[in-house]
Amino acid sequence: MLEELVRIPSVSADPRHAPDVRRCATRLVHHLRRIGMEHVRVVATAGAPFVYGDWCHRPGRPTVLVYGHYDVQPADPLAAWSSPPFQPTCRGPYLYGRGASDDKGQLCAHLAVIEAWMQGPGGPPVNVRCLLDGEEEVGSPHLAGFLATARDQLRSDVVVISDTRMAGRGRPAVTVGLRGLLTAELEVAGPGADLHAGTFGGAVHNPAQVLAELVAGLHHPDGRVAIAGFYDRVRPRSRAERAVLAASAPTDDSVRRQAGVGREWGEPGWSLHERTTLRPAVTVNGITAGYAGPGSKSVIPARATAKLGIRLVADQRPAEVEELLRKHLARTTPATVRATLRTGSRVRPAVFDTRSPAMAAVARACLRGFGARPVPLFSGGTIPAAGMLQARLRVPVVLLGLALPDDGAHAPNERFHLPTLWCGIDTLVWLLAELGECDGRARQASRRA
Amino acid sequence: MLEELVRIPSVSADPRHAPDVRRCATRLVHHLRRIGMEHVRVVATAGAPFVYGDWCHRPGRPTVLVYGHYDVQPADPLAAWSSPPFQPTCRGPYLYGRGASDDKGQLCAHLAVIEAWMQGPGGPPVNVRCLLDGEEEVGSPHLAGFLATARDQLRSDVVVISDTRMAGRGRPAVTVGLRGLLTAELEVAGPGADLHAGTFGGAVHNPAQVLAELVAGLHHPDGRVAIAGFYDRVRPRSRAERAVLAASAPTDDSVRRQAGVGREWGEPGWSLHERTTLRPAVTVNGITAGYAGPGSKSVIPARATAKLGIRLVADQRPAEVEELLRKHLARTTPATVRATLRTGSRVRPAVFDTRSPAMAAVARACLRGFGARPVPLFSGGTIPAAGMLQARLRVPVVLLGLALPDDGAHAPNERFHLPTLWCGIDTLVWLLAELGECDGRARQASRRA
Repeated sequence: MLEELVRIPSVSADPRHAPDVRRCATRLVHHLRRIGMEHVRVVATAGAPFVYGDWCHRPGRPTVLVYGHYDVQPADPLAAWSSPPFQPTCRGPYLYGRGASDDKGQLCAHLAVIEAWMQGPGGPPVNVRCLLDGEEEVGSPHLAGFLATARDQLRSDVVVISDTRMAGRGRPAVTVGLRGLLTAELEVAGPGADLHAGTFGGAVHNPAQVLAELVAGLHHPDGRVAIAGFYDRVRPRSRAERAVLAASAPTDDSVRRQAGVGREWGEPGWSLHERTTLRPAVTVNGITAGYAGPGSKSVIPARATAKLGIRLVADQRPAEVEELLRKHLARTTPATVRATLRTGSRVRPAVFDTRSPAMAAVARACLRGFGARPVPLFSGGTIPAAGMLQARLRVPVVLLGLALPDDGAHAPNERFHLPTLWCGIDTLVWLLAELGECDGRARQASRRA
Repeated sequence: MLEELVRIPSVSADPRHAPDVRRCATRLVHHLRRIGMEHVRVVATAGAPFVYGDWCHRPGRPTVLVYGHYDVQPADPLAAWSSPPFQPTCRGPYLYGRGASDDKGQLCAHLAVIEAWMQGPGGPPVNVRCLLDGEEEVGSPHLAGFLATARDQLRSDVVVISDTRMAGRGRPAVTVGLRGLLTAELEVAGPGADLHAGTFGGAVHNPAQVLAELVAGLHHPDGRVAIAGFYDRVRPRSRAERAVLAASAPTDDSVRRQAGVGREWGEPGWSLHERTTLRPAVTVNGITAGYAGPGSKSVIPARATAKLGIRLVADQRPAEVEELLRKHLARTTPATVRATLRTGSRVRPAVFDTRSPAMAAVARACLRGFGARPVPLFSGGTIPAAGMLQARLRVPVVLLGLALPDDGAHAPNERFHLPTLWCGIDTLVWLLAELGECDGRARQASRRA
């Protein structure tokens, strides 16, 4: 099933792949029906559809909402892949392919667990709802609208999401914080058309150069973000909090090794793990300007664009940060060009309660499936649904990820570690059993939390 | 003939077009033979070939070397063209197409003139050699080698090149100075592979950001180039020299209008025309970094590159400026990344004598063909052959261009103004006649100059 899903290039960012995204949704609908889920349907949106299914024949038992996403990141740069991104390929203990880990592999673990329980006598030990998103990688822009109309239909006692990392092989982790995200495209436009660089070089402010100046101007030389007011709402962290995090966090050495860099960079005064979890970050994800072909071209390009991704932490608010960025750009853009900022995703940062009975159930399941208790981790990533489901459904959200730090999510040669998948499936089988044991009082307590 | 040449996408910068470049050379060989040129041949090089032909049956008369180039700039951005770049299209008085003006159109004017003279009794009034370059747009990397072996074969009394601009419609111009050129590609490499921007954003120095910082660091905020020592060898210009230039130079207003920009930019203290002719310039011609597709991608790219074009003026030397740039980059590149500079073209700036008898012949020809005397112009562009032929053959080089300032050379919708082509052909017919009248004494004076 995972190989079949990886074969579908469901890249949500690229409109040319919209038919593939829909095809992937249809494939999942068939699968949910086949394994015995009910009310299975495609929920159309203005973008990619959600896939929904449930099985609710355990009155008095808790209801578990499993959320996952079937869309993937773009595969480029294609040349860097050892095997084609949409041709699932096994090498050693890994399955390679775009989405193998993020999130088709982790999604498949849940589907396998539900299927296994369905085949046992009496079915799953809990009521189960599945909500599969086709736009997670572009910020789940239609999830809030769907939740507003379908809140009753999605009523649950706990949300389980597997779309995050483990601490390492055999070292399960529960993610207790996610960064928010504001994406934007910054375009700088100068002359009406591309110009001859010999004829005009030196007299015209080159949009490619101005864009470089604006991108460079987003940071101070020491690594701090230079947008005025950017840190104002960032939650201060006590020495005690930082000590707790440090106990389970990867060391600077390990982050450097995972990233494949010799030297770190960033905001002074924070460990590398803290810089990517407790602290916000401004990243340029792409720059497109002028001639990109072989050799040289003597041109001053008429326009140049940069794609920006701003990771936010509690208690920053995407709309406020957007406003600060607009003010910063208005102040720093020279009068020689026109700069336009188009924003995309706006996702709030989220923090998750670690003291719910559901979390205790997760700990017991990990001990049985992985032979180890999960460690709490802050993640630098963003899962729009996690915070949104927690806020709208008012239930605990458990982020029990099955990805390894070196899976290469979003990168070429993304892969999924199959032995981890098997242990993950075991763990999730136990998790449903454990959640089924949570009594009504615990559920009510959960709901209040 | 011009339409046929425009139809051949002889883009020298792109190896995929190498067969087209060779096809264009073959087409020119056939044409030179057809119009009666002799010793016609393709001169193979490690890159694109030269096309050579001559007609030397006027003993005692001067020998004129006509130089032109049959390669063209890349056509992208393709979407900006109103008609396909390699489909010659007439709209109004213009022929549209890549190379229509630069330089296939101007080359065709010379071929038409030679053909016309060939059909008259006795043939051309001078000895004629034609040297057609297939790599001018990439800096004529094999011209020096060819000149070293073929200097005797190319022995001439004057070189005529039409690959520059007129002052305007009906306003002929002789270009008296060309900027030199140093092209380079700057690559910044960081992590071993693309990274997830959520997981690592804030802890890894992003190569796209560092590249932006390096590009931004090439200029001071006031528009001066920030490379230490960059201006040291730039020839100072007296108030008198600048006044002479200003008399025929376009105004700031006119440069802004031609460029299609509302505000100028650049080195303070110089007019816009001076900034593009008497002063050097550093231009970024392209930046490629990270995700360039639609929507967003949460990635820290492993590497990022910028294409640089540095226009040089007398008495800067390309190798010296390259050394200064390398030192500048070594000083400004942070230790978090590796920066690599690969240089391409290295062309010296050139200044041309305006007092030669050949120049007087040009003035008389313009008066007859265009009804106006040519004005002297400095050009911001670069024609590697012009300076090289002047230095190696030690003869006057005359740059009599037929391009109009709004032809859009190097840009989408490049075009050639056909009425100017007709007047240009008339002028060049007269020019050969006038040069034929130059007596031996003048020729010897020319040779000494």
